[in-house]
Amino acid sequence: MKVIKNPLEMQKTAFKHFKNGDEIGLIPTMGALHYGHVSLFKKAVKGNDITIASIFVNPTQFGPNEDYLKYPKPIQKDLEICRKSCIDYVFMPLANSMFPMSHKTYVEVKTLQDTLCGSFRKNHFRGVATVVLKLFNISCADRAYFGIKDFQQLRIIERMTKDLNFKTKIISCPIVRESSGLAISSRNSYLNDTERKLSANIYKILKVAAQDFKNKDFKSIKKNTFDRLKEIPVSKVDYIEILNFDDLSPADENAKKVIFAVALWIGGTRLIDNIFMIKPGRS
Amino acid sequence: MKVIKNPLEMQKTAFKHFKNGDEIGLIPTMGALHYGHVSLFKKAVKGNDITIASIFVNPTQFGPNEDYLKYPKPIQKDLEICRKSCIDYVFMPLANSMFPMSHKTYVEVKTLQDTLCGSFRKNHFRGVATVVLKLFNISCADRAYFGIKDFQQLRIIERMTKDLNFKTKIISCPIVRESSGLAISSRNSYLNDTERKLSANIYKILKVAAQDFKNKDFKSIKKNTFDRLKEIPVSKVDYIEILNFDDLSPADENAKKVIFAVALWIGGTRLIDNIFMIKPGRS
Repeated sequence: MKVIKNPLEMQKTAFKHFKNGDEIGLIPTMGALHYGHVSLFKKAVKGNDITIASIFVNPTQFGPNEDYLKYPKPIQKDLEICRKSCIDYVFMPLANSMFPMSHKTYVEVKTLQDTLCGSFRKNHFRGVATVVLKLFNISCADRAYFGIKDFQQLRIIERMTKDLNFKTKIISCPIVRESSGLAISSRNSYLNDTERKLSANIYKILKVAAQDFKNKDFKSIKKNTFDRLKEIPVSKVDYIEILNFDDLSPADENAKKVIFAVALWIGGTRLIDNIFMIKPGRS
Repeated sequence: MKVIKNPLEMQKTAFKHFKNGDEIGLIPTMGALHYGHVSLFKKAVKGNDITIASIFVNPTQFGPNEDYLKYPKPIQKDLEICRKSCIDYVFMPLANSMFPMSHKTYVEVKTLQDTLCGSFRKNHFRGVATVVLKLFNISCADRAYFGIKDFQQLRIIERMTKDLNFKTKIISCPIVRESSGLAISSRNSYLNDTERKLSANIYKILKVAAQDFKNKDFKSIKKNTFDRLKEIPVSKVDYIEILNFDDLSPADENAKKVIFAVALWIGGTRLIDNIFMIKPGRS
């Protein structure tokens, strides 16, 4: 495994592999790696000749009052996880080599970026799309791997990739959960023991909603979910949304396959989770 | 020479060449080809193994009241010029294969896109940057060729290419002028004979300004230029600007190398032109 910090060196290395006929898998991460990332690594290692995991806490996707400066950076542990996962290259650039003062260019995926988390985190998805586009160009990726936990991010990246004619294929991977049901996230490390136990209720509540989808209307599903999430001590709900699975447009009652997505604060930590809801027998 | 309309076919063809070790030159055009384009073609053919000229009147760079629908499309003449210029591939996609209804992604180069023409043509450079990015991805270009007449466009593309880590090198080519001095442009075809004769004054006036740069202050150069341009019958000035050559920021009196750019209407036709001004002996 080789660690590369310089974007140009990474790009030259990647293009050399590409011209050599190697298929390249990219796994973009912000580090603080966990089993969710490992599941992406496994899929990437299996599906490509060469894998590049990027570890980069992207300043442009954090708001001014968000956790950019306190975002965890357990570098040695992360590198060990990459090594054990048989990653070929870890791309770990400095912030100012990716976004120097002179940087002026941003990518926006209209509409998709404005709903869900986008309405609470201004410019977040602009930062995500921009850094992912840069990583595509640096890595020359044939495939790029993203977790379904960040479902809106996944849909935005898919749209961007298609709209801008990238050759990169987007591969999505299921949410990995702790045994309690809590969706694994780097930000879970902010939770204290009590908060972590409380957070396990989120998935339980989502599963109830998915059951209700079969015979209840959206309004009451959302209302019931809100009431249940509100019962979790120290919680504050940002949103509860039912959207069409394919394009994140607002779903109507006839929708067959929807994504039910929630974002809420548990104490000082913002968590997101989602569940697909499929109505059997609907045409 | 092969004409390709399908973006995916063009991309597959380009990547095949790229993997084969060929260096690829892209010349993005909107067709209505003239000697300015031919000068780009010549440079591209000389500097690459394979050349791709794109002919695409990009709807996203036209404002609602601009000349998208009447933009000239002399397809057969254009193809003949490409053939004579020894272009290998002409990429000529349909508008809805480049920008289908589902398209949501746009690239913006902040600050640079807001000055000069950007302040008169809302979203123009967003459209330019987006289509050029798409063409980079489709053509897998090692080099892309742009004329200096569209100087702001050139600077925006350069910035975007660097900011987003494209491997493509941007090659700029000098303004080609008619014997009268009029900068050659596809839009010159909108001018009637009288207007065309009048338009020849623009370059004469720019040359006077470049002379004045040696010993006059910016305010009087701009004022004098404005007065001279206003004297051209049926003219209406959009802007007269003196900007730093490298980054299009407003130049101060100590600037050594600036770009003097004008945009004006001659009758119903909007023309742009520019001239570099270098002050000898300034430190």
